[in-house]
Amino acid sequence: MYDRPDFLDLPQRTPKPRTSGLTHVLDKGLTVSALDALLEQAAEYIDVLKVGWGIAYVDPHIRERAILCRQAGVTLCLGGTLFEVCAAQGRIPELARWAHRVGIEAVEVSNGLARMSSDDKRTLVRELSGEFIVFAETGTKDGDAPVTDHLWVDEMEADLEAGARHVIAEGRESGTVGLYHSDGTPRVDLAEAIAARIPLGKIIFEAPTKSHQTWFVRKFGSEVGLGNIGTDEVLALETLRLGLRADTALLAEPASVGARS
Amino acid sequence: MYDRPDFLDLPQRTPKPRTSGLTHVLDKGLTVSALDALLEQAAEYIDVLKVGWGIAYVDPHIRERAILCRQAGVTLCLGGTLFEVCAAQGRIPELARWAHRVGIEAVEVSNGLARMSSDDKRTLVRELSGEFIVFAETGTKDGDAPVTDHLWVDEMEADLEAGARHVIAEGRESGTVGLYHSDGTPRVDLAEAIAARIPLGKIIFEAPTKSHQTWFVRKFGSEVGLGNIGTDEVLALETLRLGLRADTALLAEPASVGARS
Amino acid sequence: MYDRPDFLDLPQRTPKPRTSGLTHVLDKGLTVSALDALLEQAAEYIDVLKVGWGIAYVDPHIRERAILCRQAGVTLCLGGTLFEVCAAQGRIPELARWAHRVGIEAVEVSNGLARMSSDDKRTLVRELSGEFIVFAETGTKDGDAPVTDHLWVDEMEADLEAGARHVIAEGRESGTVGLYHSDGTPRVDLAEAIAARIPLGKIIFEAPTKSHQTWFVRKFGSEVGLGNIGTDEVLALETLRLGLRADTALLAEPASVGARS
Repeated sequence: MYDRPDFLDLPQRTPKPRTSGLTHVLDKGLTVSALDALLEQAAEYIDVLKVGWGIAYVDPHIRERAILCRQAGVTLCLGGTLFEVCAAQGRIPELARWAHRVGIEAVEVSNGLARMSSDDKRTLVRELSGEFIVFAETGTKDGDAPVTDHLWVDEMEADLEAGARHVIAEGRESGTVGLYHSDGTPRVDLAEAIAARIPLGKIIFEAPTKSHQTWFVRKFGSEVGLGNIGTDEVLALETLRLGLRADTALLAEPASVGARS
Repeated sequence: MYDRPDFLDLPQRTPKPRTSGLTHVLDKGLTVSALDALLEQAAEYIDVLKVGWGIAYVDPHIRERAILCRQAGVTLCLGGTLFEVCAAQGRIPELARWAHRVGIEAVEVSNGLARMSSDDKRTLVRELSGEFIVFAETGTKDGDAPVTDHLWVDEMEADLEAGARHVIAEGRESGTVGLYHSDGTPRVDLAEAIAARIPLGKIIFEAPTKSHQTWFVRKFGSEVGLGNIGTDEVLALETLRLGLRADTALLAEPASVGARS
Repeated sequence: MYDRPDFLDLPQRTPKPRTSGLTHVLDKGLTVSALDALLEQAAEYIDVLKVGWGIAYVDPHIRERAILCRQAGVTLCLGGTLFEVCAAQGRIPELARWAHRVGIEAVEVSNGLARMSSDDKRTLVRELSGEFIVFAETGTKDGDAPVTDHLWVDEMEADLEAGARHVIAEGRESGTVGLYHSDGTPRVDLAEAIAARIPLGKIIFEAPTKSHQTWFVRKFGSEVGLGNIGTDEVLALETLRLGLRADTALLAEPASVGARS
């Protein structure tokens, strides 16, 4: 049995199954044996595993992926770009049937390619949330697209009303669009506007790099929902949440250097 | 059995064994169990696995690597720097004997260190192509070296005539030399000059990052030969080729948002 | 049996157990099966495996990690931030008891958060070196902290006198603080000042990227001690040390292109 250390004063973390403080991991095509090892190590720290963009469509092991996630209590989610390509080709029913057949429980409904209206998107959130757990993403993948705080938040509220379990704020794998300026720094006003109107537990901020994750943990605390976490960064993120990495360590308490006794 | 989805309209991809549309992967020393898992997952999408630079020389598992690749129908190739160090030390015969002994089928003949003349290089291409599959690379690893389109293409033509199976356009792991400007953007004129005179199926463009890969897929289509692909990016590249990643999705067809029914 | 090639003239490398020329690897939470495969492949090239910052505290497999390292002749070391958080909370005795219980042999005593005096740090080096192998790090993680050559070297000398086995020059995972300017280039004067007064075999320079590693190998030779090496870069670093990667290949010898015969 794992003899977990407990000799430090650290922030509390909600245990799984969690409805807030989610860690949403981006799987870019991990091999099945690597996924198996990851889940054995870190399932406790992973809430959602998203198979990025259209990778599920070319992955010969998508069924095994679904089985491993289900056994580990991790929600397996399809990527938004696959959803959008299916929507553009009129193949959402085929996508849904296939996803059920291979054992996928969740889908991301996004509009990163900006090919549908907000109404179309909301309709699809409503329809799909009858059959799947729906994560609804806001924001486009186009770095030149205007980002207007209140339009983002309006869309998020509408998506939650339409049945989305959580909303995702787009940051891509690069962290240079949507939630971030092109230089990678967060859009502070946007993050604050979202947090002001959407319950924090319902939001997943895409935060692909350590500096992004650090910013959100410092801003909203250990229990902030974070997405697009690399499969090799799961334990690292947990240490950031708990103040066990230099970037977030000893933020609050006064200095009191411990002597040996 | 793998029940491959087939409900989307996507570009055709030539099945293996391919003579064009090659994916050439850079192996920086994957463990044997990780390579085994990768090949089980993605052998269908990998044509060549190059053991980078001199890694084969220090890898205790080079024989196992060769066996796994052979079983999976993937061509295992030595790195060009190992070839060049052997050439500079007068040890090409020893290299060839050792490569045969451990089961390696292919070598890269390159001149990245700019230590030999084009004639010397062509002579070695001719000699080695009697015993090995030869990939001949053009371009130096020196970012300050001049890049002249017609000299590159002349060298590529000569290497193909001398027996090289494919030619590789140097981009390094960084994507900042040879085929690329120092800021990482492609040398458009050079890429076009190569494609104008060399059959597209014979060319492997080194394209180490997603933005490089995207540029080439958009420029030359799904079946462009791409090299220096990371071992963890194989499925991701296949989605780029197929238009299942945002960067290349829905490039051509008109918007037609699918309703649910 | 592994039939190691030996047909090239390469720099000599001290075999394990080494007291100089160390490779100190940063483990950011590798799964146990990936660690097992890595050690099977590359234990010969790894002297120390540091479980980064506080990852050991959240890793359910820390015991297995310790067992695998011990079997492979690799020293498992805790991260400095975990030490510093324990020091700040007055929990060094608890840390030591737990580390013994799970089988950890080495600790890093650092002051990256700048929360203790040099005297406090030296006292802890002395106390802990009675029970553990101690790696003492110099430098803070704050990019704005002044870096004074002679203060760094004074601290390193004092730490070695207090019982540290090796001293580590801070560079972080980013390579932009301590030993490096904020643009990632090395502080040449600092590196030279350290090497002038501390025996080279006692120093581990944190060198997280290929360009950092290249700089140190070119500056101090194949047997320089290097730290914060990625778990997927171990074979790659060994080729850099041996001149089997373009960056360090053929530095010394005159050009003599080998003909085939």
